[in-house]
Amino acid sequence: MSLVVVGSVAYDGVETPHGKVDRMLGGAATYIGLAASYFAAVKIVAVVGDDFAPEDYDLLASRGIDLEGLERAPGKTFFWAGKYSADMNERETLCTDLNVFADFRPKLPESYRPAPYLLLGNIQPELQRGVRAQMSNLRLAGGDTMNYWIRDYRAELLETLREWDFLLINDSEARMLAGEYNLRRAAAKIRDMGPRTLVVKRGEYGAILFADGCQFTAPGYLLDRVIDPTGAGDSFAGGFIGYLAQQGVDPAGGPCDMRDLRRAVIYGSVMGSFCCEAFGVERFRTLTQGEVEDRYREFKTFTDF
Amino acid sequence: MSLVVVGSVAYDGVETPHGKVDRMLGGAATYIGLAASYFAAVKIVAVVGDDFAPEDYDLLASRGIDLEGLERAPGKTFFWAGKYSADMNERETLCTDLNVFADFRPKLPESYRPAPYLLLGNIQPELQRGVRAQMSNLRLAGGDTMNYWIRDYRAELLETLREWDFLLINDSEARMLAGEYNLRRAAAKIRDMGPRTLVVKRGEYGAILFADGCQFTAPGYLLDRVIDPTGAGDSFAGGFIGYLAQQGVDPAGGPCDMRDLRRAVIYGSVMGSFCCEAFGVERFRTLTQGEVEDRYREFKTFTDF
Repeated sequence: MSLVVVGSVAYDGVETPHGKVDRMLGGAATYIGLAASYFAAVKIVAVVGDDFAPEDYDLLASRGIDLEGLERAPGKTFFWAGKYSADMNERETLCTDLNVFADFRPKLPESYRPAPYLLLGNIQPELQRGVRAQMSNLRLAGGDTMNYWIRDYRAELLETLREWDFLLINDSEARMLAGEYNLRRAAAKIRDMGPRTLVVKRGEYGAILFADGCQFTAPGYLLDRVIDPTGAGDSFAGGFIGYLAQQGVDPAGGPCDMRDLRRAVIYGSVMGSFCCEAFGVERFRTLTQGEVEDRYREFKTFTDF
Repeated sequence: MSLVVVGSVAYDGVETPHGKVDRMLGGAATYIGLAASYFAAVKIVAVVGDDFAPEDYDLLASRGIDLEGLERAPGKTFFWAGKYSADMNERETLCTDLNVFADFRPKLPESYRPAPYLLLGNIQPELQRGVRAQMSNLRLAGGDTMNYWIRDYRAELLETLREWDFLLINDSEARMLAGEYNLRRAAAKIRDMGPRTLVVKRGEYGAILFADGCQFTAPGYLLDRVIDPTGAGDSFAGGFIGYLAQQGVDPAGGPCDMRDLRRAVIYGSVMGSFCCEAFGVERFRTLTQGEVEDRYREFKTFTDF
């Protein structure tokens, strides 16, 4: 079933201990869309500048992603650059040029509005709310946010979260949002803010799902080499919502099927792990459905007792 | 089946955000022994001073622990004091008085020598090797070490590790021992040093088991309140080896049964989680077999997909 993804389509400059790339395709909507495209029909809403390269457009199109909502504006595409620490658990932002993204007011094409699934990438909460309001037939909506919105746009964010079915967030942001260090109690507080399904991402340590009457922990996948973690969290989100859309999960008919949610967290972890195996979106150029399923089965092996 | 545990029996002073205790029973062998006593017949080898309190002796005895190897020497019992950071992920050692432990040369009672299982708590590698040499009928031997021995007693430690079937170690120490940041590659290097079974402990994030042809990840148990993490790693070790001893695991008849090893890691996690629920060894005063089994089942629920 079809899925609308909203967020940035950008160019990134990234340096990790394994190398340096000055400019490559990136952005939350790019990673989410590519990862989700292994499971569902994806429709992207984003803005790019007149420097956006045809080959990058073609990569997205080659994964069957609907690009009717990819607005082209005069000016340059959003550019971000960052550098990772030696252990890659920290990164420093070297440059953020919003460019055309500064005036992004996402407007959904008519053909997107009846889509049942919506993933709101990390953008201003008010814009996220505006997108949700344009959808006519939602089954499941949710997304991501970050420390900046939590700290400086709290009231707006809380108003936005009230309408979400799920929130994907990393552990330090969960603690910040809840004002509570203990994760179990932080999760309870956040679920009271609206999203009944909460996924707390813990980087290399995996993710934890909190939902009605259920808690589930997915381990991180141990890679032999982490080449570039950029986009791993967004790829996780893409695998998660993509799988739910593929299964046609419908919480209106009762609480989400917990089995589907658990498996969605594993597929999220699978897509996040592949993302780290190469710079930027490179791994998605070659990744096959068979490799995705193989890694899903590895997760089974790693956790069964 | 019976299990010999070697390590410190000590008094600890501990401060956490939940309170402060000036002096309470502690030490690696104490935690390992208490945790293992839920699964197997435990025999402790350690030394205490003439200040060791009868009620502390009685607590160990009440769990059926054989104390013939608990030597009493003139002087004071080993004392350690530490203070945890607000998030309890770091701790500062305030005081280490080795006292009678400084001259500890573990000598095994005759009745201990035929025991098939041996857990060497974190003491000087040469002493660990000496204990192993006194055992006459070993099936499975291994233990713990720490950054101090890895850094300053490396050659001695490597000689000791060569004889071990398993090593339990935390992630930063695994990286230090292997000289390799990537955990998967660090594990391969360490397993080449001797211990074919390696458990990397990751604190609140759980543990990873590496063994022949197998990798297994156990999540951390999310507690509502972590009162005092002192002894959690040793309690993990006690649950791990205790379960293997209970099952009578015998790697001489082929590689360890992976199912037993996986379950041993879960029982280790279970015992580590209980340990954190109260100061020092307090939780073991009331902990029942039924609670242990209930939490084991919770781990099943948290990880099944």
